Amino acid sequence: MLIGKVVGTVVASQKDEKMEGMKFLVLKVVDAEGREGSSYVVAVDAMGAGLGELVLYATGSSARQTTITDKRPCDAVIMAIIDQWEVGGVVKYRKVTGEYQS
Amino acid sequence: MLIGKVVGTVVASQKDEKMEGMKFLVLKVVDAEGREGSSYVVAVDAMGAGLGELVLYATGSSARQTTITDKRPCDAVIMAIIDQWEVGGVVKYRKVTGEYQS
Amino acid sequence: MLIGKVVGTVVASQKDEKMEGMKFLVLKVVDAEGREGSSYVVAVDAMGAGLGELVLYATGSSARQTTITDKRPCDAVIMAIIDQWEVGGVVKYRKVTGEYQS
Amino acid sequence: MLIGKVVGTVVASQKDEKMEGMKFLVLKVVDAEGREGSSYVVAVDAMGAGLGELVLYATGSSARQTTITDKRPCDAVIMAIIDQWEVGGVVKYRKVTGEYQS
Amino acid sequence: MLIGKVVGTVVASQKDEKMEGMKFLVLKVVDAEGREGSSYVVAVDAMGAGLGELVLYATGSSARQTTITDKRPCDAVIMAIIDQWEVGGVVKYRKVTGEYQS
Repeated sequence: MLIGKVVGTVVASQKDEKMEGMKFLVLKVVDAEGREGSSYVVAVDAMGAGLGELVLYATGSSARQTTITDKRPCDAVIMAIIDQWEVGGVVKYRKVTGEYQS
Repeated sequence: MLIGKVVGTVVASQKDEKMEGMKFLVLKVVDAEGREGSSYVVAVDAMGAGLGELVLYATGSSARQTTITDKRPCDAVIMAIIDQWEVGGVVKYRKVTGEYQS
Repeated sequence: MLIGKVVGTVVASQKDEKMEGMKFLVLKVVDAEGREGSSYVVAVDAMGAGLGELVLYATGSSARQTTITDKRPCDAVIMAIIDQWEVGGVVKYRKVTGEYQS
Repeated sequence: MLIGKVVGTVVASQKDEKMEGMKFLVLKVVDAEGREGSSYVVAVDAMGAGLGELVLYATGSSARQTTITDKRPCDAVIMAIIDQWEVGGVVKYRKVTGEYQS
Repeated sequence: MLIGKVVGTVVASQKDEKMEGMKFLVLKVVDAEGREGSSYVVAVDAMGAGLGELVLYATGSSARQTTITDKRPCDAVIMAIIDQWEVGGVVKYRKVTGEYQS
């Protein structure tokens, strides 16, 4: 999994019938230092994530292993909302504050 | 999923029998700012997408989960046509105008 | 799928028993402008492609969906030979001439 | 597989029900010279790995082949803890010392 | 598939039970000109490859299609040992000499 920050939405009324009701969120991929890079992914939201939250997303066939994405043409899914993220004993991010710490 | 812009077509009369009738579209991969980058993908069109439209495409085994691509040697499929795309509350693209907005 | 140009062959007499009889071709990956880049892939040929031809190849589990690659340790397969490739209404390549056009 | 160094943890109380009880570790991807690069991955720990240890991790559908990750939305798993790593007859890393050697 | 050169080994006594008895080899990824790049992969050896040999390896779910890797958490497998490799009618590598030729 990688860490993404929810930054936006994609609306698509014409979509494969198996994707009806799916919510597409735009995630900026976050690097190991907590910086948003230039790469992004559009993921199905299986968790009810909100704008600005840090999430874990899974890609490939693993993105079809949640109940809502099972057997659907979906290659990226948000499968966890991050509470806290620590590297080397130092808290990099804590959800309650919504800010990175170093 | 990633966002692609439909820019062209590939015609291939000699193809695996399971690919008969599939339409191959050339997509330029669009970055998080709405810019077309240098990378591309050739995707099967499951949606009837038109030249110039922005679409979502799925890759890998997920590209075989639409009805028309089931069990076929296809690793990229257009599974949605984008109506609107928003980042940070700002509309980046709206289909009705066909133009990026910032 | 991506576009590759057939540039060479790999011979391997010692191979997994499921790969017996498979023909390995070396493909240079072609970019969206029709240029051969530095990256390559070794693909199983399911189409009888010839040296110098442009082909479509599929990767990952999708590379096992042709009849000859089914259930084999193969992660790239040529599943179509390209006749013509157009971007923005302009023909980039036509098989009969074997040359790029712009 | 690639080699990763365990550098941190991710805590996520809101996660897909199939991910209950999974432990998420942050791995820095280690290059062929034993250097930590800038890329990382968040992997499920199937081995009880500790901070600072070098591990092997598998990605994609292969990450779902351990007993604890079976059929779960997990695309990276630690499936081995490295004791020793040799290149060209030279020991690059030995767990007992926890240090790289060249 | 890509071409790798066998350059080393990884020893891991603590590993997922499904990986018992698997031999892990370190491969340097070889580019289209026969140069070893900086990237590597750790692959299960299904062929009895030796140090210094050039091999083909398959990744992803295809790496689980050999008899010894079936249903195991393995995302890279050596499935062929290269005898000869030709590009544009020129032999790039021949196993008997163990040297690149141009």
